[in-house]
Amino acid sequence: MKIASIESHRQVEVTMEGATGAKMRMLIGPDEAAPNFHMRHFEVAPGGHTPHHRHDYEHEILILKGRGIARSERGDRSVGPGDVLFVPANEVHQFVTDGPDPLEFICLIPAPKDCSK
Amino acid sequence: MKIASIESHRQVEVTMEGATGAKMRMLIGPDEAAPNFHMRHFEVAPGGHTPHHRHDYEHEILILKGRGIARSERGDRSVGPGDVLFVPANEVHQFVTDGPDPLEFICLIPAPKDCSK
Repeated sequence: MKIASIESHRQVEVTMEGATGAKMRMLIGPDEAAPNFHMRHFEVAPGGHTPHHRHDYEHEILILKGRGIARSERGDRSVGPGDVLFVPANEVHQFVTDGPDPLEFICLIPAPKDCSK
Repeated sequence: MKIASIESHRQVEVTMEGATGAKMRMLIGPDEAAPNFHMRHFEVAPGGHTPHHRHDYEHEILILKGRGIARSERGDRSVGPGDVLFVPANEVHQFVTDGPDPLEFICLIPAPKDCSK
């Protein structure tokens, strides 16, 4: 069993096109040889957002801190700590910080077949 | 995109042999047709614990509230909010509440092939 705090994981800037002020930590992934799904932590600065995009895999998300707007094909919804979000594959989505505090959440994805990505 | 608070999900007693004072909420699972992995929420009462067992699939865990002891083949370790735990397949493990407050965590597993389970 591997145990480590969120903060002990290296935080890197999200450089994907369309992301602004977003940083990511890989909590459980290739380093643990996690075979089926990966747990990541995101911190989006005030005024920041994740890309407005879609892809062929799902997201499972839990909001930890801050407030945000979850944008999808069904409109904008306010989210905060304790909210659980399921984004099905191929649905357009974006997360935008709302308010003065960073938006923090974990976001899980299926393990990429090529784990070097 | 489906959005719902942790508290809005139905909480059920964990009836698995070896569990005491443990309740579970399925946050993302069969109801969402989550194809690859399921997110569950556990709340273990003071004095309670999950089963001391192992199985052929991994756990990915984030502690949300309270304090606990994570028991594994490598010994006992204290865990608290913000700790991330990876339990590989086939490793014996147990989570025991430590202190006066309930231990709350999310625990993700691969989607069972038979989603009715």
